[in-house]
Amino acid sequence: MKKHIVLLPGDGIGKEVIQSAKDVLEAVAAEFDHSFTFETQDIGGCAIDLHGTPLPESTVNACTQADAVLLGAVGGPKWDRLPSHLRPEKGLLGIRKALNLFANLRPVKAYPHLLHASPLKEAVVSGSDLLIVRELIGGLYFGTPSERSVDGQSVVDTLAYTKQEIEQIVDKAFQSAQLRKGHLTSVDKANVLESSKLWRETVEEKQAQYPDVTVEHMLVDAAAMKLVTNPNSFDVIVTENMFGDILSDEASVLTGSLGMLPSASLNQASVGLYEPVHGSAPDIAGKGIANPLAMILSTALMLRHSFQLEKEARTIETAVQAVLDDGYHTADLQIENGHKVGTEQMTKMIVELI
Amino acid sequence: MKKHIVLLPGDGIGKEVIQSAKDVLEAVAAEFDHSFTFETQDIGGCAIDLHGTPLPESTVNACTQADAVLLGAVGGPKWDRLPSHLRPEKGLLGIRKALNLFANLRPVKAYPHLLHASPLKEAVVSGSDLLIVRELIGGLYFGTPSERSVDGQSVVDTLAYTKQEIEQIVDKAFQSAQLRKGHLTSVDKANVLESSKLWRETVEEKQAQYPDVTVEHMLVDAAAMKLVTNPNSFDVIVTENMFGDILSDEASVLTGSLGMLPSASLNQASVGLYEPVHGSAPDIAGKGIANPLAMILSTALMLRHSFQLEKEARTIETAVQAVLDDGYHTADLQIENGHKVGTEQMTKMIVELI
Ligand SMILES: CC(C)[C@H](C(=O)O)[C@@H](O)C(=O)O
Ligand SMILES: CC(C)[C@H](C(=O)O)[C@@H](O)C(=O)O
Repeated sequence: MKKHIVLLPGDGIGKEVIQSAKDVLEAVAAEFDHSFTFETQDIGGCAIDLHGTPLPESTVNACTQADAVLLGAVGGPKWDRLPSHLRPEKGLLGIRKALNLFANLRPVKAYPHLLHASPLKEAVVSGSDLLIVRELIGGLYFGTPSERSVDGQSVVDTLAYTKQEIEQIVDKAFQSAQLRKGHLTSVDKANVLESSKLWRETVEEKQAQYPDVTVEHMLVDAAAMKLVTNPNSFDVIVTENMFGDILSDEASVLTGSLGMLPSASLNQASVGLYEPVHGSAPDIAGKGIANPLAMILSTALMLRHSFQLEKEARTIETAVQAVLDDGYHTADLQIENGHKVGTEQMTKMIVELI
Repeated sequence: MKKHIVLLPGDGIGKEVIQSAKDVLEAVAAEFDHSFTFETQDIGGCAIDLHGTPLPESTVNACTQADAVLLGAVGGPKWDRLPSHLRPEKGLLGIRKALNLFANLRPVKAYPHLLHASPLKEAVVSGSDLLIVRELIGGLYFGTPSERSVDGQSVVDTLAYTKQEIEQIVDKAFQSAQLRKGHLTSVDKANVLESSKLWRETVEEKQAQYPDVTVEHMLVDAAAMKLVTNPNSFDVIVTENMFGDILSDEASVLTGSLGMLPSASLNQASVGLYEPVHGSAPDIAGKGIANPLAMILSTALMLRHSFQLEKEARTIETAVQAVLDDGYHTADLQIENGHKVGTEQMTKMIVELI
């Protein structure tokens, strides 16, 4: 298989972990006889520095033509005081919109070796394996008007959805549930929001097409509670953009392994953007100690979702599991009687296992 | 002191715990020589059954004239399929708006005896003592338009705030922080929402008036994480209505004692509505086993915030602590080598201590 991949290292540790992703993909290509070509483009803070904008047109063009995109991370204190249209995050929001990446998939899995670092009791979190499917290009993030009044005394943001936008994310979530344990929790605030009522109705209509999936509706406040008290009870969660932002970050810390969590953002053509859930971690950038596993697991998601290379994806996931089983970990994690290694050595071990 | 209090039992266990509140207040009146008069009104599901509306005018009128309002809980499966303007929750939203209750205060405190029931590791949650100050009558809950398009193919909700609305809740939060540890975390999504940018600016402006309070800004997704990983690091959190709904419910389960959490909703005249954080619990309603402590602690908040009776409030809080120290608890809680009691006996013990 021949594929062209755009690398967007971004800022901070993004640059380090993207190198790990490339190394791993080259190992996969060699082992399974594929040809992956790579091209690096700027996004976020470094793009502001070089091009005066967090999302240069050249980056958008390259991504549009690629088979998939890997992103490290964006942002850092250096750019925090810029006006909002010049903030690194705008690059991220812009590329999501430009590629029409409506579906953000964030799997959260409890790794037995890492549970002792979870804030939750092991009995509560152990066995958790859930997937949050977040709508990514609608709702409050992109609705208009989003502006201050001329006199500066009032402000408005808009939570807008079309039925078609809801249908496409709900379809994606049902399909994801079919590939997993067949249970879908749709999260909304239907006792308050009109948009949530349309959301809930749409889920109920779609349900008929997926008789093998059981559906439950949950209010967002109840979901925020249940993620903490009983993360085990979820399989797939689907929700709108802002609720998804909050709940997926809440979920990301449950298992004590934020440095292990990948994410995929997909469009209808399944050209996707893959990135770790963690940020650019400016405090440890350049030290060679960043955990590359979330980025590496993001490449596995890319192989699976964009290239349908399930075997290759599993090979990566198995290698990650094996390295942890052997007690190797980066500085952000702790494993009893384990061995601490840096970014490069961790990557090398994964590459060797592939 | 002479005060007139409206009791809104509402639905489910609301009816049982409101009786406990009344008993406790009568004990306080006797002990401290106050005169409290009571009047019961309908709200929620029972009001729908009796009056065809979740918030009868008679209830609004009574509350407007009262010195304070105590609410049990509203809702239940019986009314879940009604059209939305006839749902019990509409009564709650309506009374908040009618009384102009802009500030919702939700303290969350770790009770050492109950920590073993927390989903969090004791080392993580122990010592937590935080207060969420939630804006309660603005934002997505009340913004217009909030409607579906005529063809049913799209929908919109509106997140609107005036600067004055933000100022009044921010002032309340700063004042609350002054009475506590002097640290305020303002939660927003200023990297995406215009309303959050105005929110953040307003907090920064107000800061000058409260030099004794330290201020930190946090994005809502980061706050959702930090509540789980480090609840200890918060003192007062202030945020807009929808973020507050989600975060306060998330926070409510951290300490393993949801049945213990009171809340206060205040207006500028500090006529307040006080209610437990827990719901109407239809599954255990009428069995005499509901935990009345959240409702009883809500009366303490009423004495403190609406009547400035600090000593009386503390007497109630000390009594609750003493009963737990003696190992008494209702069925929703567990205390090692403790004694399980019902709603009535628990109330009687508190009354005797007062
Ligand atoms: C950086 C920010 C705009 C972004 C979001 O809110 O979507 C981030 O929090 C995320 O979840 O990817
Ligand atoms: C019942 C519902 C409308 C209400 C809210 O969202 O405000 C509840 O969740 C609360 O937090 O008091």
